[in-house]
Formats: sequence, structure tokens, C-alpha cells
Amino acid sequence: MRTQNLTLLTDLYEITMMQGYFETGNQDIVVFDTFYRETPSGGGYAVAAGLEQVIDYVKTLQFTPDDIRYLRSLNIFQEEFLKYLSNFRFSGSIYAVPEGTVIFPREPIVKIVAPIMEAQLLETAVLNIINHQSLIATKASRVCYAAQNDGVMEFGLRRAQGPDSGIYGARAAVIGGCCGTSNVLAGQLFDIPVKGTHAHSWIMSFPDEYTAFKTYAKLYPTACILLIDTYDTLKSGVPNAIRIFQEMKAAGIELKNYGVRLDSGDLAYLSKKVRRMLDEAGFEDAVISASNDLDEYLIESLKIQGAKITSWGVGTSLITSRDCPAFGGVYKLAAIQDKNGNFIPKIKLSENTEKVTNPGNKTVYRIYDKESKKIRADLICLEEEVFNSEEDLLLFDPNATWKRTLLTGGTYTMRELLIPIFDKGKCIYTSPSVMEIQEYCTKEKDTLWNENMRFVNPAEIYVDLSDKLYHLKNKVFNELSEAKYSQAPSRV
Amino acid sequence: MRTQNLTLLTDLYEITMMQGYFETGNQDIVVFDTFYRETPSGGGYAVAAGLEQVIDYVKTLQFTPDDIRYLRSLNIFQEEFLKYLSNFRFSGSIYAVPEGTVIFPREPIVKIVAPIMEAQLLETAVLNIINHQSLIATKASRVCYAAQNDGVMEFGLRRAQGPDSGIYGARAAVIGGCCGTSNVLAGQLFDIPVKGTHAHSWIMSFPDEYTAFKTYAKLYPTACILLIDTYDTLKSGVPNAIRIFQEMKAAGIELKNYGVRLDSGDLAYLSKKVRRMLDEAGFEDAVISASNDLDEYLIESLKIQGAKITSWGVGTSLITSRDCPAFGGVYKLAAIQDKNGNFIPKIKLSENTEKVTNPGNKTVYRIYDKESKKIRADLICLEEEVFNSEEDLLLFDPNATWKRTLLTGGTYTMRELLIPIFDKGKCIYTSPSVMEIQEYCTKEKDTLWNENMRFVNPAEIYVDLSDKLYHLKNKVFNELSEAKYSQAPSRV
Repeated sequence: MRTQNLTLLTDLYEITMMQGYFETGNQDIVVFDTFYRETPSGGGYAVAAGLEQVIDYVKTLQFTPDDIRYLRSLNIFQEEFLKYLSNFRFSGSIYAVPEGTVIFPREPIVKIVAPIMEAQLLETAVLNIINHQSLIATKASRVCYAAQNDGVMEFGLRRAQGPDSGIYGARAAVIGGCCGTSNVLAGQLFDIPVKGTHAHSWIMSFPDEYTAFKTYAKLYPTACILLIDTYDTLKSGVPNAIRIFQEMKAAGIELKNYGVRLDSGDLAYLSKKVRRMLDEAGFEDAVISASNDLDEYLIESLKIQGAKITSWGVGTSLITSRDCPAFGGVYKLAAIQDKNGNFIPKIKLSENTEKVTNPGNKTVYRIYDKESKKIRADLICLEEEVFNSEEDLLLFDPNATWKRTLLTGGTYTMRELLIPIFDKGKCIYTSPSVMEIQEYCTKEKDTLWNENMRFVNPAEIYVDLSDKLYHLKNKVFNELSEAKYSQAPSRV
Repeated sequence: MRTQNLTLLTDLYEITMMQGYFETGNQDIVVFDTFYRETPSGGGYAVAAGLEQVIDYVKTLQFTPDDIRYLRSLNIFQEEFLKYLSNFRFSGSIYAVPEGTVIFPREPIVKIVAPIMEAQLLETAVLNIINHQSLIATKASRVCYAAQNDGVMEFGLRRAQGPDSGIYGARAAVIGGCCGTSNVLAGQLFDIPVKGTHAHSWIMSFPDEYTAFKTYAKLYPTACILLIDTYDTLKSGVPNAIRIFQEMKAAGIELKNYGVRLDSGDLAYLSKKVRRMLDEAGFEDAVISASNDLDEYLIESLKIQGAKITSWGVGTSLITSRDCPAFGGVYKLAAIQDKNGNFIPKIKLSENTEKVTNPGNKTVYRIYDKESKKIRADLICLEEEVFNSEEDLLLFDPNATWKRTLLTGGTYTMRELLIPIFDKGKCIYTSPSVMEIQEYCTKEKDTLWNENMRFVNPAEIYVDLSDKLYHLKNKVFNELSEAKYSQAPSRV
């Protein structure tokens, strides 16, 4: 179900470029890096997500006869090339950080090593999938951080940007820490908890609120969360809810997973009032859940105000990452293999020094403090580099090399972040379940400092370059800077 | 292809409520209205889109055995109810405004008249689809307005919130006015123009920029837009492009659809410089296209600065509607049919007067100035009301009834906006093609005043209530306000 051929989910230029490589006989093996430059919402970290769907996409890559007919109809593709496409399979290798990993700017999170035509085709879909799910997983992680240990439910399907955005958004939200979703299809597809009670229309379809509550409680006695703001929260909703709970108690029904939901009004004020009313009626363990355009900032503010809410439903702001609805992941050529099998580093210049890409076939190590198990830094290096954590390691800021940190041998540990996913076209990785990824992500977040997680001016984790990579980058950079003017036939 | 069962694309509470109605034997016919309250990005109008996908969704609604098994596994549904679901088909009626129609706050754009269980189930998916596509169609319309008569291409797939968001977003963008998309799958599915040239990686994969251009021009002589900012726009990119164009000319190739693309730097400054260089070389008809994080505000500013760009590629800001990534469409119960077939109006109260819903089984008329053909106002009224445009019509602001406008009989025309889509379960509407919808949308925008289309403080189109609906609303409102306290068993 929903396994669909997304082979044409790509920008046209990927295919026009492929034809170009085909026509010129370019079969070079290249390295493309996927990375991002700025953390969404000004945060101190992001959460990687979407790899399972990238794998599905790559596995099912295949131009159907319909696809070929469609491409032919565009009148820009040669028959030889279309024939090549109709036999297309991905034959390259992919390395990626596991889903749920906390990630930082500029480090490769998906690396493709493949013939240039294949690597080029993958660009758009890989970015689409990774950008979307990493965005929502990151947002969910922020919202859950604000909610401290309370449960956060993903409620946003109706405001998501299309069906997939709701479905994969719910998946990513659970990876980032949400305890469930209202989205039934996501529940079915990913085996994640689904929850939900009733809407205002339920209340309005009955002659009065009490009867609506009563009917609901009878049907769902073990998940009885009553929506109390249809008419008047304090004067009608809460008294009716209490009456129901009293009747349930009197009928000998064990009250658990029960309570009320607030969906409008001043949540700080109302939740305190409601808490007192419920407590005074003897329902100290009744849950007060809240929804209504919540986000991490509002939840943090409500916590500071002492709001008596312990369960949160978050919709629009989470499923769209409203304050930052795009994760700026990019896909950049880093190296081209020569005839001897060596990777020739490639670089993309930019006016902005920080935007100059990192050349070469690289990997990423995460360096932890041995004692606290917290992250000290990430180190981007060339793939062949070997480190020994018993030796001292000098880290430096690649944009301000006088900023240095010496890690003493034996006080730190290292872990390679990129792991093999596809090996020469064959998938060699099995994705964990979404709930397993969530658990892993929780452990990942434990390796961050609180200072990385706060919303205002979070501390940055250093993402440094190895000495070798730093010097290689400068070399390529200088060569290219010198060469570029000579390419122009005339100076202007 | 991509026709998939989205029956479980819903919030769990829709199904728990359905079971509630099932258990209580509630088979009432109800009316639900879909409408929005605030125009995205502070604009003066929105563009309706997504109806074709709503129709597909309703037509294919069906709980498969897998779906039933999944719901059973949640342990909250009774077998009798699951049996009902397994035979579920939509048997109700749907009315909607055609896609591409300009719409305004508070007026119903999709109306469902159906047994309460069926109407309830549809809520989430209808909102998801309509909210997404109307959001992007509206954004596209704004971007195209800023670009005046230039072509605007949708380029955002890699930053869209998942595959569907890119696919249906491209569809909506074309409805809103874009001349095409880079998204090949959207092109295939909706028969809309796809376009694209090459990326920086194309240039970088050749020994030099000139060879990269030359190869590209040889392959695509009739769509030769060269990306000129990989190394240095003015010193390398433009001179190399001019050299290519000269060589093409010398070889007797007819130059059309050719030019350059800018993707970084100061687009105002660079485009003027590039224009002069191209003109001086005799390529006055070479296109200058531009991309790089554009939106309607940047394009408007570039136009004001006299930038020499005539073709625009818009990515992230369009496909995510970055400054306002959610269209706040809601789905509200408006009436319940009684045993005599009369619709009993229902209302949802709110602290905010403007948020009180409009009760009853309604429709919407658009009123045009007979001479200018521009919109005078929209009028929400009860379905059975009849108007005669030869008679005077007094309009008034429902929230400030002293604000009145008298339309003299004979000076205005009226058109009903809601048209029948499903009649008792049967689809009686055929969606036009996307390009036909675009054409219709262009005509729709011609009925707006420039004052409605500007970005800052746009003039609002009046959306008024008929006299009859206004009085009905007040009656229901007052009855409910009086009744609501009496529902509370005790006053607090």
C-alpha cells in the first residue's frame, strides 16, 4: 500500500543533465553530499529523518513504459537515452546518518557515491524527503523539549501541506518525540500510537453538553477525555465533566486515562481553574490536555506561568514547522573519481566563505566527552583518515583557525556518523521501527547539553574540519580562484 | 498511478465519533461548511484549489479488509461498527466553488450534506486537500501578480514538505498562474508544462565553464538557458555565454528560447549589467531568468529597481508558502435535518464574535458591478432564498450593521458560487484540466480590483449575510446564549 513509483519525482533538469552525461559518454563515479547550512527556527541542533523513505525510493527507482512515453512526448530526449532510462537501476553506494541522529550544519548526512547520471537523478527526491522529515522531527523535538516530560500529540493532519505531508510529518513527529498522532493512516503505516477523542461537532449534535459527554463516556470509558469548551468552559464544560466522572465512579467504573481537553481561551488561567475544580471534586488524577495553535514558545510560556496542563495536542505549528517551513538541505558535488580510482576533490565557490563547499570523499566523526558522554564536537574529515582517541586531538574553527581546542588523548571517544546503506546498488541496511528510532533519538538528545537545546541563542556544537581536509580545501579553493578568470575569453 | 486508498487519512476522533453516532443510531442528515477566516499573507483574496483531489478521495473512499483489521487492532471499535465501515460508501451531496475561483473569508467553499457519520469522516481529508492547494494557488497568484506579465516557474520540489506537497503544490501553483514547473511527475500527472536546464554540478563536472555551456547548447539548442554564476557571473559566465551564442549564430542555428539564468548575487545590479553585455553583443532577445529564494516581495522590489529579469524561478517560498505555511480552512456543523426535512440551524459560539459560525443550509452569491464586471460583494444566504437583480439590494456589514451599501436594481449581476459536485453519492461534476482551470482563474482575477491585489493593506471585498440569514443567526445565537448556563448543573 502506498508503495508507488516516484521515479519521475524529480526536477526536469536532472534528466536533461543525465542525457548530457549520456551523450558525452560521462560515466564518472562522483560523490554528492547532502547537508544543511542553517538550523531551522534558530535552534542548536536538528534531528535527521526520512532515510527509510529514501531507501524505499531508491529501491523502487524504475522508469515504467508510461514514464518513458511521457518523457518522449516532451520532444527533448533521444531514443538511445530513453532506452538507457528504461533499463535504469541505481548501482551506486549510499552512506547516511541513522534516523533520529542529532545533526549540525555543514556535515554530510547522506552521501551518494555513484555514476554521475545516477547520482544526479537522485538529487531532488532525496532532498525532498530528507528536508521534509528532518524539518518536522526537529520541530517535534523542540516542542517536546518545551513540554518537559508531558506527552505531546501530533494533531496537524488537516493543516498539513497535502496527504504525504500529514503522513510522513506524523512519522517524523514521533521520531522527534511525540507520543502519538491523530493520523490514522500514519498509525497504520508506521505502527505508531494513534489517539483522539471528539470534536465540537460531537457536542453540538446532541441536545445538550451533558448528554454528549454521557454518551461519549459510555462508549469510551477507558479513554474518556471530554472537550469542555463548546459552550462555556468553567460554567458548563467542567461541571458537566465532573458530573460524568462522578456517575462513572458511582457505577463502579475504574477511572483511568480520563480528563478534559481545553481548545480555546486563556489556557494558563483556565487550566488552573479547571485543575482546582477537578481536585475539589476528588479527581486529582484527571488529565488536563490542551490544544489551540500551540508551539514550543507557547508551551514554554504556559509552563513558566504554572499552567496545569500535562498533555499537549499540537497541530499547525508542528506539522508545517510554521515559523520555518523549509529545511535548507542541499546536495553538492564533492568529488569525481579519476581513472586510477582516486577522488578528485571538487568545490563550489561562493561570495560567502561559509557557503564554499567541502571538497573530497568525506565522512564525519562525532567526538564525545568520555566522562559526561556529551558531544564535544563533530569532525568532518576525508574518508581514509584514521584517528586514535588515545592520542591528543587539536580541533580548530575552519573559519577562524586561531580558535582551538585541544582534546587530551583518553578523555574523548569517537563514533563515525555515516553508515553504509547501499553498497553498489544493494541495500545493506534495515531501518528500525519508528518507535525504535524515537528511543534512539531520545538517547541522542541526551548527548546534547541543555545549552544546545534552549530556544534563544543556543550554544553551537563545533563542526570542524580535520587538518587534512582543511588544507585540501584551501588548496582546491586557491587553484580554482586562480583559474577562474583565465576561463573568461575576455575580461570585462 | 498514484490512485491510492486514503480512507484512513483522517483523525482518529472522526472514527470514534462515527462509532458514537452508529451506537446511538444517529442517522441525521447534516450540513457541514468548509470556509476560512483569514487570508494567507495578509492578502485581499484567496484562490480555491484541490477540488479534483477531493472528488478522487470521496470516490475511492472504502475501508479495505486491511483497514478494518488495523482498526480492530486498536481495541476500541465494536464488530457491528466495523461491519458497517466495511460496507461504507459516501451517499451524500457535495457543493463547492470551482477550482480557480477567487474566494474570501467566512464564505462556504465546500458544503457537505450527508448522514452525520459520513460527513464527519470526510472532515480531515477535505480540509487537508483544500487547505494545501488553496494555500499554494493563492501564493502563486501573489507571486505572478508581482512578476507582472513575466513567466513564473515553480521550482520548489526539493524544499516541499514531502512528495505530495511538491506534486499537488505544483498543480496548485499552475492554477494560481505559474507557467510551468520543474516537477516532472506533476507534469506527467496533470499535463502541465515542465521546464528546466542545468545545475551548478553540470558546470563543475566539465573541465571548464565554456565546455559545459558548449555541450549543453549542442544538446538543447532550442531551450538554451545557461546558468552563469558558477564561477563569476560577469567575468566568466556572461562572456562564455555570449561566445556560445555567437558560435550558434555562426553555425546557422536559429536562436530562440535562449538566454541566461542568474542564481546568486545582487539580482538587480547583475541583471542590468548582464542585459547591457548581451545587448552590446547583439543578443537583445536573450532571456534573463533569475532564481534564488525569490518571493512576491523580492520580485516586486526587483521590478521597482528596474531589474532586467523577464523570467522567474520561484522555489521554497512558493511551494511552502513560507511566510504563511497554513491555510486556516475549518469544517463546521451548520445544520441538522429534522424529521420533516427542515434544516435546524446550528451555531458554534466563541468569545470572538467574528468566530461565531453562520448557521443553516446556505449558499453564496457573488455580486458584480454590471458595467465594470468587477466584484461588488459576496452574499451568504440561506439556500432557498431567491434574488432578483433587477431589484434594489441593501447590503450591510454583519458585524457593523450601520455600514450599508444600496445596490440599485439593474446595475449589478449575481452568480451562485457553490455548484453541485456529488448528488446523493454520485459524482455529477467533471473537473476541467489544470490549464483550463488556470485560464478560468485568470478571468477570476480580472474581476478583482487592483486594490484587492496589492500586498500591503489590500482592500477587502465585502462578504455579507442576507437579511434573512442575519436574523436567523441572531435568533439562534440568542437562544443558545440563554440556554447555555442552564446546561450547567451548578453555577460556579
